[in-house]
Amino acid sequence: MMLVKLGGSVITDKVRYRTFREEVLSRLVDEITSAQKEIILVHGAGSFGHIIAAQHQLQHGFSDISQIAGVAKVMEDVRELDLKVLKVLNLGGLPSVSLPPSAVASLRCGELDDLNVEMFRRYLELGMCPVTFGDVVLDRERRFGICSGDQLMERLAREFRPERVIFCSDVDGVFTADPARDPDAELIETVSRETLDALPRTKRCADVTGSIFGKLETMMRIASWGGDAIVLNGGIPGRLEAALRGETVVGSKVVSGTV
Amino acid sequence: MMLVKLGGSVITDKVRYRTFREEVLSRLVDEITSAQKEIILVHGAGSFGHIIAAQHQLQHGFSDISQIAGVAKVMEDVRELDLKVLKVLNLGGLPSVSLPPSAVASLRCGELDDLNVEMFRRYLELGMCPVTFGDVVLDRERRFGICSGDQLMERLAREFRPERVIFCSDVDGVFTADPARDPDAELIETVSRETLDALPRTKRCADVTGSIFGKLETMMRIASWGGDAIVLNGGIPGRLEAALRGETVVGSKVVSGTV
Repeated sequence: MMLVKLGGSVITDKVRYRTFREEVLSRLVDEITSAQKEIILVHGAGSFGHIIAAQHQLQHGFSDISQIAGVAKVMEDVRELDLKVLKVLNLGGLPSVSLPPSAVASLRCGELDDLNVEMFRRYLELGMCPVTFGDVVLDRERRFGICSGDQLMERLAREFRPERVIFCSDVDGVFTADPARDPDAELIETVSRETLDALPRTKRCADVTGSIFGKLETMMRIASWGGDAIVLNGGIPGRLEAALRGETVVGSKVVSGTV
Repeated sequence: MMLVKLGGSVITDKVRYRTFREEVLSRLVDEITSAQKEIILVHGAGSFGHIIAAQHQLQHGFSDISQIAGVAKVMEDVRELDLKVLKVLNLGGLPSVSLPPSAVASLRCGELDDLNVEMFRRYLELGMCPVTFGDVVLDRERRFGICSGDQLMERLAREFRPERVIFCSDVDGVFTADPARDPDAELIETVSRETLDALPRTKRCADVTGSIFGKLETMMRIASWGGDAIVLNGGIPGRLEAALRGETVVGSKVVSGTV
């Protein structure tokens, strides 16, 4: 089984509110169906989630009642994105079912507490592709919070122990420096604990949003459970398919421990 | 707390595939917000569900692999209807969250086995209106099946013991005969066990689809747990709001036992 995340920066324009990149997703879905693997798919919320969530400060949980309309609006928007994803998947010949975190997950102090993995398992057994995504979710301490695609990836990897765990980003992988600013930036093909500790902490790599370090720590835990943890550029045709087929591909592979 | 079902025949055109009645729903949502009650909302799937579900014979569960694309398509279509409902609710000032049965429920031989009522409770506590709907759902024996809005109404009524349980239909209530064919048909204001047993079994009343008798048996069980079980015409402005306010309204009230 393969666990694939389509980053919000790949399937949406992250800075323009609710802008869906349908053609990119259609191509990625073609690559997934061509590879003929059993898949669980996670997608980011991108500009369908982050913009309004930040306006209402949803990431820190409940502070006042005026946020509730924001919670409902972000949930509505990410469901809209998810429905678009679902349509492309079904049309592409991959019968899919969406399991929204707001319905199947719960946080505790921002950490993923419960996830109904049984539902994912039963739909896989039925021959369907379970789909989930970054969402606003109930939190037992803070009343609500944000459940990221990466938190879902980690839990699903722990439960299902996939052959490969693939993160589709909008850059080629992890670099020694910011490739957009530093001409000497080099792609790191294998990221170990040593590499991670040696990376300059101010540089952005692999994802324009959030910290790459948090993502790499997540990927390192995933790698520690066996299986490959790979970050690659979903914007370049063929890379996701090659990774799904088990081929070597331009990208960064995260390995647990030192090399 | 009030439990309200908006029948598929009220919010969609049941015979035309995927035809949504947005203006009817907007008015009903205005009536709900005006009444200012704590609400759980259930809606039917109408023409977003029944047509394709029947084509693929989904109601009897798994018979061959070709049905799986149908399962995915019906789920996609009912999510699309649900998203439309959610938008009207949020826009109408009722912050809502959708809990799709395909993600929070499970059947056993066509009967509702599990429903994650805890999720409904927690969203109510947060001040949101939980919304659910008729859907294709996993079945422990038949692999999948149809979970109707009425099955959800019964379980939610049992768990939450609402003050009133209101079914919005496209006719005024239960009649002594089919009001569309028999000019002498009379609305039955109070339906008891005796009334139900005396109804002519060939007549349609209260709902053009499925058996009214099944619905009335469900409503009778609901009434047996206390609270009122009412069927009324959602197509007539003001009736839902009046019922939510606890007023007497044109419709049929189902009472448990004999009168």
